[in-house]
Amino acid sequence: MLKVNPNLDKIEISVIRKIAEACKEYEGGEKTLINLTIGEPDLPQPKKIIDETIEYMQSAKLGYPQLGGMIELREEIGKYYREKYGLSIEADEIIVTVGSTEGLSTAIKTIILPGDEVLTPLPVYPGYEPLITLAGAKLVKIDTSNDNFELTVETLKKYMTPKTKAIIVNYPSNPSGVIISKENRDDILRFAKENHLYIISDEVYSEIIFGEEHNSFLQDEYRENVILINGFSKSHSLTGWRIGYVIASKKMRGYLIKVHQYAVTSASAISQKGALTALKECKDISSQVEIYKKRAESVYKKLKDANIFAIEPKGAIYIFISLEGITNLTSLDFAKKLLEEERVAVVPGIAFGMDNYIRISLVKDEDILNEAIDRFINFVNKKDRE
Amino acid sequence: MLKVNPNLDKIEISVIRKIAEACKEYEGGEKTLINLTIGEPDLPQPKKIIDETIEYMQSAKLGYPQLGGMIELREEIGKYYREKYGLSIEADEIIVTVGSTEGLSTAIKTIILPGDEVLTPLPVYPGYEPLITLAGAKLVKIDTSNDNFELTVETLKKYMTPKTKAIIVNYPSNPSGVIISKENRDDILRFAKENHLYIISDEVYSEIIFGEEHNSFLQDEYRENVILINGFSKSHSLTGWRIGYVIASKKMRGYLIKVHQYAVTSASAISQKGALTALKECKDISSQVEIYKKRAESVYKKLKDANIFAIEPKGAIYIFISLEGITNLTSLDFAKKLLEEERVAVVPGIAFGMDNYIRISLVKDEDILNEAIDRFINFVNKKDRE
Repeated sequence: MLKVNPNLDKIEISVIRKIAEACKEYEGGEKTLINLTIGEPDLPQPKKIIDETIEYMQSAKLGYPQLGGMIELREEIGKYYREKYGLSIEADEIIVTVGSTEGLSTAIKTIILPGDEVLTPLPVYPGYEPLITLAGAKLVKIDTSNDNFELTVETLKKYMTPKTKAIIVNYPSNPSGVIISKENRDDILRFAKENHLYIISDEVYSEIIFGEEHNSFLQDEYRENVILINGFSKSHSLTGWRIGYVIASKKMRGYLIKVHQYAVTSASAISQKGALTALKECKDISSQVEIYKKRAESVYKKLKDANIFAIEPKGAIYIFISLEGITNLTSLDFAKKLLEEERVAVVPGIAFGMDNYIRISLVKDEDILNEAIDRFINFVNKKDRE
Repeated sequence: MLKVNPNLDKIEISVIRKIAEACKEYEGGEKTLINLTIGEPDLPQPKKIIDETIEYMQSAKLGYPQLGGMIELREEIGKYYREKYGLSIEADEIIVTVGSTEGLSTAIKTIILPGDEVLTPLPVYPGYEPLITLAGAKLVKIDTSNDNFELTVETLKKYMTPKTKAIIVNYPSNPSGVIISKENRDDILRFAKENHLYIISDEVYSEIIFGEEHNSFLQDEYRENVILINGFSKSHSLTGWRIGYVIASKKMRGYLIKVHQYAVTSASAISQKGALTALKECKDISSQVEIYKKRAESVYKKLKDANIFAIEPKGAIYIFISLEGITNLTSLDFAKKLLEEERVAVVPGIAFGMDNYIRISLVKDEDILNEAIDRFINFVNKKDRE
């Protein structure tokens, strides 16, 4: 074979994929398979979004959208951030992207160079490291277990080197459901400004918050340092539409758009219309959030009652469960055994850089989730007896 | 400002954009503006595609599509290549991409490394160089005017160095409309194999061919060397849907998909359904091709009768007109003056690396194109008299 980019050899097939493959063997068996691996909302896409997009498809040209995203959508996104967070965001500081993934990829390609180091707290979403690796840089993963899995400046300082170029944060966190306090957020922003670091803030779960408010890293005082990533996959269940956005300073947007334009031209015009409808007509997703919240509380309580430690989710659609004292198996082997014996599919914590955990997605009805947790507890207790 | 990827400073805002900006000044004037800059089909998207996609949106989940593209679509693409070209292409050698742009970007990121040289014939589509530059490599543009703008091995040999890693070909060509002969194609494939070079073949105009047949670079004997890029933007006017595909060897696909997955996750599920309908139900686009062909012939004849040299288009949706002996202006200044005086917007040849040309897109009705050419000829004759 002719030579390819050698960084690609460092990128492995994801652990999530391995479990998904293993799932196939157990489909249609006697005991129903409960698949809690994928981070895809089960709640339906708002009908209004489908209907208005269909109407648009019947009348509009569906030609190349404006470079960087249709102006109506970018204006609506700006308005949303102005109203919700009191920020001064304008349309020319926004790029509409092919989901939040393309936003991340575009941001990383724009600012990360070979040899750079990028800091991120553990547990970490598995989509970041391959992009950093492909850029020839290094993702430095920070243990935050002593700070309730919140990133703090004290921890950042320990990992900072002259090579550090950026910090990736993801609150509410996939997989931990942890959110960040205003104080820590402000400290991190100040630290980034003082040390000339970029912050890539993946806030794709910003709308799914249980109770407290979301502290966005996008702040007027720190616009030079921050690239915000967001999208409609989680808030409006629009996963298959591939639609998201990036917000950055106007100057940074000038760089980002060069990468974006030549990488994808634009996001689909159809999906852009869907996102516009989401923001204009389906802004209130509180009833959906309530469902995720109830699921999270129910599962968390069940685990607690069984003396199993899990990180209490404050947002997002996951629960991250500790295997400490439960097993000596790797999280992958544990997940495989759980699947084999109890037909419950979960993601091994190693996928997020923490081998003594597993992740459950809260994307099934509460009774199915409860059934899965019962099976999990049963499995754990069986292990105890062995 | 904090440091960004320095290669981005080498990427300029496109000349096409400059002309598009200039156009805005002349809209709604006394003399109607005829904008022939954009490479976007004016022919409507097949109604069947819209209808079936809408039906799909009303019933399907529209969740994350399968990694690499929905299997039905990949199977249909494979079938198309087996039937049309007699090749042995299977679904696991295909990735569905966010338009052909993402295919190109993914291919280049996978195989091109800093310091590499990539050969391509002039005139060249302006989307390639920024991707090569961003990869830290160099696009070496080859003069092919002595070979009727077809790439030959003799020419390739002159530009080949130890750094040469790949060749990008684009037949039918944007902007020249030139196609490649079977003989030249075979010679280039053999040359690539012998010299361990990749060929990235952008065949996005493969369906728009006037008379002769399309000689695809995808050949069973050379699968190791070739990455084929194609899409539905030109054949089915699905520009805004952002849907295309890459075909490569199974092994190469394994690398490409790592880049694709972390760059965009996938193309929109809605757009994938549109593409599937295009292939299953709207394969015959001969009446559309006939329209482009008539336009090309009409414009070409008009220019010939006025003793103005243009490259005779054998496919695609453009005509590339020589300014040799017509003006001493740069192609950008010429285009600006033509716009100012005659309200005809064209793309300066410099956008394609050839300053003594302009490009016209054949994306208006024949009478409008003829009117534009009349104005152009009038403009040229006026210049003569000055």
